[in-house]
Amino acid sequence: MSFVPQIQKIWKTKSAEDVSKKMFLAVAFGVFLWLVYGIVLKQWPIIIWNAISLVLAVTILALKYRFG
Amino acid sequence: MSFVPQIQKIWKTKSAEDVSKKMFLAVAFGVFLWLVYGIVLKQWPIIIWNAISLVLAVTILALKYRFG
Repeated sequence: MSFVPQIQKIWKTKSAEDVSKKMFLAVAFGVFLWLVYGIVLKQWPIIIWNAISLVLAVTILALKYRFG
Repeated sequence: MSFVPQIQKIWKTKSAEDVSKKMFLAVAFGVFLWLVYGIVLKQWPIIIWNAISLVLAVTILALKYRFG
């Protein structure tokens, strides 16, 4: 959920120059691994929260790609 | 560890304009709660990794404060 203010900020300013692509690639990969872990163990809270986090992290990467 | 490229980027460009202060405040608070949880349960891996994450998140906030 901490990603929401970052998404709002990029959307508002239409700028993501200072946001690190490497950071959010690493975050997205980490969250993806948690998601796989949740799926393997069939733990719904882990699946749901990490699926949401992954969507938000990928959104930031998409905005970074769009606004640079 | 995903915070390291963000720190490098801010340090290199001397700019953190697009980095969301709210995001890293939320991250630092979340990591702080994990740290307390680790201390209460005396789980050293949780303590060590969240202590490192907290230092890195606070570093990003300090750079944000410094470079804006």
